[in-house]
Amino acid sequence: MKILIANPNTSTGVTDRLVASARLVASAGTELIPMTAPRGVPYIATRAEAAIGSAVMLEMLAEKRGTFDAAICAAFGDPGLGGARELFDFPIVGMAEAAMLVACTLGRSFAIVSFAKALEPWFAEIVAWHGLSGRCAAIRMLDSQFTNINAVADEMEQLLVDLANKTVSDHGADVVILAGAPLAGLATKLRDRVPVPLVDGIQAAVTMAEGLVRLNPRKATVGTYRRPGPKDSTGLSKALADVIGHKDA
Amino acid sequence: MKILIANPNTSTGVTDRLVASARLVASAGTELIPMTAPRGVPYIATRAEAAIGSAVMLEMLAEKRGTFDAAICAAFGDPGLGGARELFDFPIVGMAEAAMLVACTLGRSFAIVSFAKALEPWFAEIVAWHGLSGRCAAIRMLDSQFTNINAVADEMEQLLVDLANKTVSDHGADVVILAGAPLAGLATKLRDRVPVPLVDGIQAAVTMAEGLVRLNPRKATVGTYRRPGPKDSTGLSKALADVIGHKDA
Amino acid sequence: MKILIANPNTSTGVTDRLVASARLVASAGTELIPMTAPRGVPYIATRAEAAIGSAVMLEMLAEKRGTFDAAICAAFGDPGLGGARELFDFPIVGMAEAAMLVACTLGRSFAIVSFAKALEPWFAEIVAWHGLSGRCAAIRMLDSQFTNINAVADEMEQLLVDLANKTVSDHGADVVILAGAPLAGLATKLRDRVPVPLVDGIQAAVTMAEGLVRLNPRKATVGTYRRPGPKDSTGLSKALADVIGHKDA
Amino acid sequence: MKILIANPNTSTGVTDRLVASARLVASAGTELIPMTAPRGVPYIATRAEAAIGSAVMLEMLAEKRGTFDAAICAAFGDPGLGGARELFDFPIVGMAEAAMLVACTLGRSFAIVSFAKALEPWFAEIVAWHGLSGRCAAIRMLDSQFTNINAVADEMEQLLVDLANKTVSDHGADVVILAGAPLAGLATKLRDRVPVPLVDGIQAAVTMAEGLVRLNPRKATVGTYRRPGPKDSTGLSKALADVIGHKDA
Amino acid sequence: MKILIANPNTSTGVTDRLVASARLVASAGTELIPMTAPRGVPYIATRAEAAIGSAVMLEMLAEKRGTFDAAICAAFGDPGLGGARELFDFPIVGMAEAAMLVACTLGRSFAIVSFAKALEPWFAEIVAWHGLSGRCAAIRMLDSQFTNINAVADEMEQLLVDLANKTVSDHGADVVILAGAPLAGLATKLRDRVPVPLVDGIQAAVTMAEGLVRLNPRKATVGTYRRPGPKDSTGLSKALADVIGHKDA
Amino acid sequence: MKILIANPNTSTGVTDRLVASARLVASAGTELIPMTAPRGVPYIATRAEAAIGSAVMLEMLAEKRGTFDAAICAAFGDPGLGGARELFDFPIVGMAEAAMLVACTLGRSFAIVSFAKALEPWFAEIVAWHGLSGRCAAIRMLDSQFTNINAVADEMEQLLVDLANKTVSDHGADVVILAGAPLAGLATKLRDRVPVPLVDGIQAAVTMAEGLVRLNPRKATVGTYRRPGPKDSTGLSKALADVIGHKDA
Repeated sequence: MKILIANPNTSTGVTDRLVASARLVASAGTELIPMTAPRGVPYIATRAEAAIGSAVMLEMLAEKRGTFDAAICAAFGDPGLGGARELFDFPIVGMAEAAMLVACTLGRSFAIVSFAKALEPWFAEIVAWHGLSGRCAAIRMLDSQFTNINAVADEMEQLLVDLANKTVSDHGADVVILAGAPLAGLATKLRDRVPVPLVDGIQAAVTMAEGLVRLNPRKATVGTYRRPGPKDSTGLSKALADVIGHKDA
Repeated sequence: MKILIANPNTSTGVTDRLVASARLVASAGTELIPMTAPRGVPYIATRAEAAIGSAVMLEMLAEKRGTFDAAICAAFGDPGLGGARELFDFPIVGMAEAAMLVACTLGRSFAIVSFAKALEPWFAEIVAWHGLSGRCAAIRMLDSQFTNINAVADEMEQLLVDLANKTVSDHGADVVILAGAPLAGLATKLRDRVPVPLVDGIQAAVTMAEGLVRLNPRKATVGTYRRPGPKDSTGLSKALADVIGHKDA
Repeated sequence: MKILIANPNTSTGVTDRLVASARLVASAGTELIPMTAPRGVPYIATRAEAAIGSAVMLEMLAEKRGTFDAAICAAFGDPGLGGARELFDFPIVGMAEAAMLVACTLGRSFAIVSFAKALEPWFAEIVAWHGLSGRCAAIRMLDSQFTNINAVADEMEQLLVDLANKTVSDHGADVVILAGAPLAGLATKLRDRVPVPLVDGIQAAVTMAEGLVRLNPRKATVGTYRRPGPKDSTGLSKALADVIGHKDA
Repeated sequence: MKILIANPNTSTGVTDRLVASARLVASAGTELIPMTAPRGVPYIATRAEAAIGSAVMLEMLAEKRGTFDAAICAAFGDPGLGGARELFDFPIVGMAEAAMLVACTLGRSFAIVSFAKALEPWFAEIVAWHGLSGRCAAIRMLDSQFTNINAVADEMEQLLVDLANKTVSDHGADVVILAGAPLAGLATKLRDRVPVPLVDGIQAAVTMAEGLVRLNPRKATVGTYRRPGPKDSTGLSKALADVIGHKDA
Repeated sequence: MKILIANPNTSTGVTDRLVASARLVASAGTELIPMTAPRGVPYIATRAEAAIGSAVMLEMLAEKRGTFDAAICAAFGDPGLGGARELFDFPIVGMAEAAMLVACTLGRSFAIVSFAKALEPWFAEIVAWHGLSGRCAAIRMLDSQFTNINAVADEMEQLLVDLANKTVSDHGADVVILAGAPLAGLATKLRDRVPVPLVDGIQAAVTMAEGLVRLNPRKATVGTYRRPGPKDSTGLSKALADVIGHKDA
Repeated sequence: MKILIANPNTSTGVTDRLVASARLVASAGTELIPMTAPRGVPYIATRAEAAIGSAVMLEMLAEKRGTFDAAICAAFGDPGLGGARELFDFPIVGMAEAAMLVACTLGRSFAIVSFAKALEPWFAEIVAWHGLSGRCAAIRMLDSQFTNINAVADEMEQLLVDLANKTVSDHGADVVILAGAPLAGLATKLRDRVPVPLVDGIQAAVTMAEGLVRLNPRKATVGTYRRPGPKDSTGLSKALADVIGHKDA
């Protein structure tokens, strides 16, 4: 099966990390199709950037539709996920969503740990949007500066281990999610340095996306994720305008 | 004082209705500055359209910044509101937000009534985002077709009265919000046909925006609405890219 | 328009502070009518005192009814607010209510800071009553003794700045409400000494009361704030007994 | 042991019903001391009346203090309960509180059924204040007129049975609380006409009050129910002023 | 009246402590019938052990049914309580349940303090199951080793006092529950060493069980605690199989 | 990889259905190992039966440990799941848990539909235990009698379709979970007769179990799912006693 990894950040280095981490857990027959945002910011970290990234995510998915079996919304705050589920009929999972749902099978509570203070409010809102605040013990970010988004996982490795351990001891987290696309792969590497399970968003997302393809759920024709009726639009990418206008048959 | 009414829908007829309704309650010295989205859809009704509208809202505010004292995010689901509060230093209120906060001073619970089924999930999510689900008795939409977004308030007047009354009798709503920019002005007109207070989003927003200008709060430099650090971007409108890149001095 | 500032505390010095602070933000055409409780305690700080103050508030409003366009329940815990909304047909806002609703437009979460430990449980209950606990990051009080309720704002200025800053750094408050009638005016004075917006309850209440007068909502005839039927009573103030007995035409 | 039944309604007929019902379950050695409100309304049914009743309840308890081992706040919405727990050192339980706590031991969810529509908002608020909304399946009131508060239990017996049964079938209530002082005694009478346990507030309160006397808990000297420091007051009943001013030794 | 104290732990020393503590508050005419689990672990401390203990509790109650008026599920996490309420028609209260319900009448919030870290997750789940998390300020356990489950109350007395005081000062607990059957009796002993009321689970349970016997509620025939229809089973104790199979007449 | 399907019901027919349904979605290399409860009831439907089944589940897992890579707790209410996560170091997922987590990726809200009224309270409690009540639109059961637990899926097919459709139209469910082991396989068969995605618990569980094996999380050594210390026990199955006593190396 083919799974699109749609990275709404413009950094191809981040896309590379995502794919490399995903490969470690993907099934033998799964092909991973990477895609990097053509516009936006190198790394989404705020609600303003997520708003922009949400629109870009819809454009990306419209552009590639028909070439894959399931898609992953590959930024931790799941930008555009709700809208994508309305517009499209393929399964799609968010990285935050998958990480949290997998974490729920490993502990009573999870912590979300990442590298930049700016991410905290956005992450808190996505946890609430998914209705999982009751399972979230803490959201904790490093407060350091980093030099390069592609190298942040290496630069801050020990600080992240320390912070993860702190969420376990201070907040009673049963599981720690190492969140944010630039940290893809780190959970595997640090497995023995934190005394509870670590979850990597892209890895969780790949296993859930594979599962969804096998479960083969139908597209809803009623309810909140039914496809909206056709609508005219102005100034959108052609692919997205076609989907919104039902000219995508 | 000058208040920007930023309508993220592309329909100028809707903008006209918003301004006309706002004028009924604005103070003598308040100038209302209308603005209509340059791209997007005529009327935002779904999460996908709201994702697009959120990005457009940020572009609109970036474009006009410096020409007003406060802004209104003039669509009921408040697209882009959180991001706008990060990027900009002027007060901004959402129409859903203002309607609900005013409703809270008039009753223990409010209902949200509008004209299109498609709006329901989006509205439910914005109520939750504002942390006000506990005050919301019901969200109820008509399930009829309309012929013209600019005329929907007139076409469906009696149906909306009936539906508003039903939320009062069946769900115990103490207040009814007539939601959605195309219904601007209707609350004033229907005041005596529903036995509880009716709230009009744009009117509520104008009074709260005026209040905020007079209260003159400082811009946060810490916390979730501090301005993010400067960031490079690709492919955004020049005005928005300048704000994001701190080139807007 | 005329706005009654009904102070349920017996201290006229507190009333003076409230009016002085309110004047800083009231519109040009707004007349503020001060009223001080004829019985009760100098400063309400506990649930027992709030119970007494609630009954006194109803007597005060009954006494002055017909002489103003809107009223402010001018103690932070909003004593008597729910009952007042049943009995009377003018708009009324609570100081706690207005402060919190305005704070909601300025940040994701607010802290409530005040000068006396005894206030904490009462304030916590009023936040919950308004359904806003989910937006409240912290309620923190000084634990010092003060010499004079009218001078407490000056005596404790620096301690309050420190405590406000602490709620920002420790609890992530996006906004700080300086709560309690004796602190009226302090938010304006301390604006630059805390890195997030400060909210003053009486100022927030005045802007919301003015807005409500302009919105001109109808009195509910059904729902939880409809007027109760006439009832006999024993031993109440004549004005209140007349309102309860529907002898107030 | 001696238990004060403090009825904050001015109707002595209601007090008589309360005592008669309480006697059915009180232990052999328990003496019930009835007390009827000297001022207020014959039957508290609204938030305004509860505000008045709360202050009266504090006066009543101050008046009789020292003559009993525990007190019952004998109106279903528990007027003045929080304040009473601050001021006094004897155990006190509310009728709503006791009914709900006992109901929690008999089912997963309880319904509250009573005779007057006006009671609903007040009852909903007291359920929330006790933190028990999650256990409350429904609050349902008759919408009929009654001729005499002392006879309402008899007049409406069959309607109340029907309504109780409806909360079981429609809302899945595991237990039904027949709420309101004028219905005291009815649960015993109707025991076999509803297929789930019925709870009578005054009976529940008597058993809990007896239990508290036997458990003999200490008065808190810290926390939200510690006694407030002494305070001057104006215009209160002498007994209550003495308690507030610590002149009650 | 006769009250069964069903201890699902296999330690008879713990049963002895429970009975001794219960005697201090039981009414003169109350006979306490002790029963110790015939299989399981000496002291239930984890969810796995509670799962085993829940099944054993049902066997114990089935075995002794008909010989008492009410039963107490005498371990703090109330193992088997929900199932017991389905199967049997006598009143039954859990020790955690009774402790928390009584605590609710003594403060706005309670803390749960006990002697073994392992108990924390189980206790947190039982608080949530009872719908009382909103009243629970903290759950705090000692992290020490103890030598003898029957002597743990004596060994750790001072540490428990210190921890109880810490929940008061750090978490604002209004009441402290000394939880766990091995601590039975300690609340009485330590009454003056913590500045808020202490609650002992078995004592609270005895007073509530006595109250329930006097209230004499009917067995539900509909709702979630109605008795399930007869069912065949394999490999269960004869007494329990008879109850499940309706062969217990 | 090898996945244990541990059915805590004693009916082998149900086990057969579970395995047949699971095979439809299991990966090529996955071996499914069926296991049926050696004692208990043919089909767990109540809290009492779930209490028994929880203990049996632990015995079953102890018995087979070492022969598989992951286990499925194969009854919809997940009996024994929490305890199993403490005792064992292999991944284990519950059928209710997996169904709900997968449903979360397909809609904003899910309904749970099953065949027997008795299941409702148990299912409601497991939804709450997983912290997912906020995502659950409704739990609805048929109220019919069935003749044979192994044939219930066929007998009631049309009634279940009708009920599923009703949860969509009346409660706005975006996804419907056909719950209960005896309904395994039905979601696949009925895919086109309900307009939203249907989820089958065992199929969801198999995909999640496979994912967990590939993610290879470590066993927690701290937190709520760390393994408890060794403990003596009396009267348990040898396998389980060995695990509890740490004699299972």
